[in-house]
Amino acid sequence: MQPPPAEPGMREEEVDTPALLLDLDAFEHNLDRMAALLEPTGARLRAHAKTHKSPVIARMQMARGAVGQCVQKVAEAEVLAWGGVPDILVSNEVAGARKLARLAALTRIARVAVCADDPGQVAAVEAAAEAAGVRLDVLVEIDVGAGRCGVEPGPPAVALAERIAASRHLRFGGLQAYHGSAQHRRAPAEREGAIAAAAEGARRTVEQLRQRGLECPIVGGAGTGTFALEAGSGVFTEIQAGSYAFMDADYARNEAPPPFRQSLFVLATVMSRAVAGMAVVDAGHKAVAVDSGLPLVWGRPGLRCVGASDEHGSFRVEDGEAPALGEKLRLVPGHCDPTVDRHDWYVGVRNGRVECLWPVAARGAMF
Amino acid sequence: MQPPPAEPGMREEEVDTPALLLDLDAFEHNLDRMAALLEPTGARLRAHAKTHKSPVIARMQMARGAVGQCVQKVAEAEVLAWGGVPDILVSNEVAGARKLARLAALTRIARVAVCADDPGQVAAVEAAAEAAGVRLDVLVEIDVGAGRCGVEPGPPAVALAERIAASRHLRFGGLQAYHGSAQHRRAPAEREGAIAAAAEGARRTVEQLRQRGLECPIVGGAGTGTFALEAGSGVFTEIQAGSYAFMDADYARNEAPPPFRQSLFVLATVMSRAVAGMAVVDAGHKAVAVDSGLPLVWGRPGLRCVGASDEHGSFRVEDGEAPALGEKLRLVPGHCDPTVDRHDWYVGVRNGRVECLWPVAARGAMF
Repeated sequence: MQPPPAEPGMREEEVDTPALLLDLDAFEHNLDRMAALLEPTGARLRAHAKTHKSPVIARMQMARGAVGQCVQKVAEAEVLAWGGVPDILVSNEVAGARKLARLAALTRIARVAVCADDPGQVAAVEAAAEAAGVRLDVLVEIDVGAGRCGVEPGPPAVALAERIAASRHLRFGGLQAYHGSAQHRRAPAEREGAIAAAAEGARRTVEQLRQRGLECPIVGGAGTGTFALEAGSGVFTEIQAGSYAFMDADYARNEAPPPFRQSLFVLATVMSRAVAGMAVVDAGHKAVAVDSGLPLVWGRPGLRCVGASDEHGSFRVEDGEAPALGEKLRLVPGHCDPTVDRHDWYVGVRNGRVECLWPVAARGAMF
Repeated sequence: MQPPPAEPGMREEEVDTPALLLDLDAFEHNLDRMAALLEPTGARLRAHAKTHKSPVIARMQMARGAVGQCVQKVAEAEVLAWGGVPDILVSNEVAGARKLARLAALTRIARVAVCADDPGQVAAVEAAAEAAGVRLDVLVEIDVGAGRCGVEPGPPAVALAERIAASRHLRFGGLQAYHGSAQHRRAPAEREGAIAAAAEGARRTVEQLRQRGLECPIVGGAGTGTFALEAGSGVFTEIQAGSYAFMDADYARNEAPPPFRQSLFVLATVMSRAVAGMAVVDAGHKAVAVDSGLPLVWGRPGLRCVGASDEHGSFRVEDGEAPALGEKLRLVPGHCDPTVDRHDWYVGVRNGRVECLWPVAARGAMF
């Protein structure tokens, strides 16, 4: 783990770079806004910690009504549970006996659930629970259009749920019905169509389960791009959005104006102005993820990113004054989740001053 | 820092995933081969630690004749110096007084040099050296075609070199002449043309410096894609290749057969087979960098990566048998440097067994 790039009380311009900057006013606005948007729907927030990787942020979300957290990895679940998060869903399948043993052990300090889409996986989770002498909640993941993981809605999901419910070591936890690719479809009608189909698949499966005497404690899914649709469907009980707390350039392209404010930045310093018309900063794609597009410069639309190599970001000066050598720029990441995962510290700023430092405690927690 | 995903003596199939796997036979072959290729040229290796981020690997390279290491970041220089590397070049500009103070402090335990492409930067390095009571080596970076950092070859470079040489607190260290974009041009003739032009710019500048009484202790540049050209130019004295030790899918497309073996892999586990014709593994782009293309599967050409999200890699089964749920696959990263930077541990394997665990000590060392 690297030392922090700042100290409390510093001015933002003094923060060493590249640094992961969190605008606390915007961040708290986003947490409040999501709570307010979900309140009338009856759907509860189970925020996705794959985005923030921080028990500190998880507890702030839960203080505003979130019922718990989602994670993708057992190692993330461990970091959250150790940091005081009492209710955690691993929102995908977990393969491997060592991982499942760790997950089962974690149920001693937190409520932990996991997903399955295969009878072999259910048997593996069952063996781990039995060996640990605990009972694990298992949700059935259904493929509602993403084409990645999950059994078909309807009878295949029901069969797997019955397999889970029949085990003395497991509890049937409900359905996982996340449509990942729908989050980033640009036209609202496309997102509406995709989630209508997802909700229909989930609704049908819930009904068929009920006919077999199985209730779904959780029907979970949704992300920042579609959560209002799932929350309004009457089927989904839990919303798994994560990016809403930070936002990024990709999600900002979904809706104008976006319902959330940009709170996450990578602070960078201009390290070279030697090539005419260019400004090169000390943050490349090792500091700011480019899998969903190059970063923007906050408040400087005349600076356009034209390339990111490992440690350099290259910006063309298209309009306005060129930034000076040594000047600091706030970059808006193309994609917030993997950007956070590159850093060891959040530098929380308010009114131009560093207010707090929080570790990205589950940074690199990938197994 | 995360705990290691393996223990010495384990079989490769037992390693927890995703894990950064180093095939030690292939890796040692690559180190030996680079030493053998450079030996007759007279150019010395100053391997780039931005790739490996490990003092252990740096010392192995130096045991085979490398004169030292390159880094991009002061924090990387610190990790190397603390780990016993005696000679380090920061191969680009460093902006910011705090960073420069750390760099100056480091000269108490290692020889440290840095680059500049602006008189303001030279003044900043000078101030840091004076404050620390040390003398720092400063190289002039020239732009030999990459269009990123560096002054023009010839008179602008000479003027900056004279500014450095005139300082009581600095030493003129030579020229930094790296052509980054040339590394990945596919046609050998294109790489040859680019490096011929780069060498010509460097040669002209060296000559003009000599006329002003300034010798260049270092003329540095080159990467894995072009090093034979720089080494054979008679101008470059130091070769800054890094990826050659590991290789990746992108560099493998440069030359058939490549002069180096693939030694770096991300070991992943099949976590879902629920969607027909697909195998989903537990390694997405948080575990294997996709900035230079999606990963390949080692020894399984019939499995084609069709998507990488944060924590999932999706593979289509195009030919041959589908992998089983729980099966482990070696992924060949599209780009080795940022892939290494996602992980905390190298898992060194030989003959199917884990032989060693080395920390990626400068993982995330970005400022």
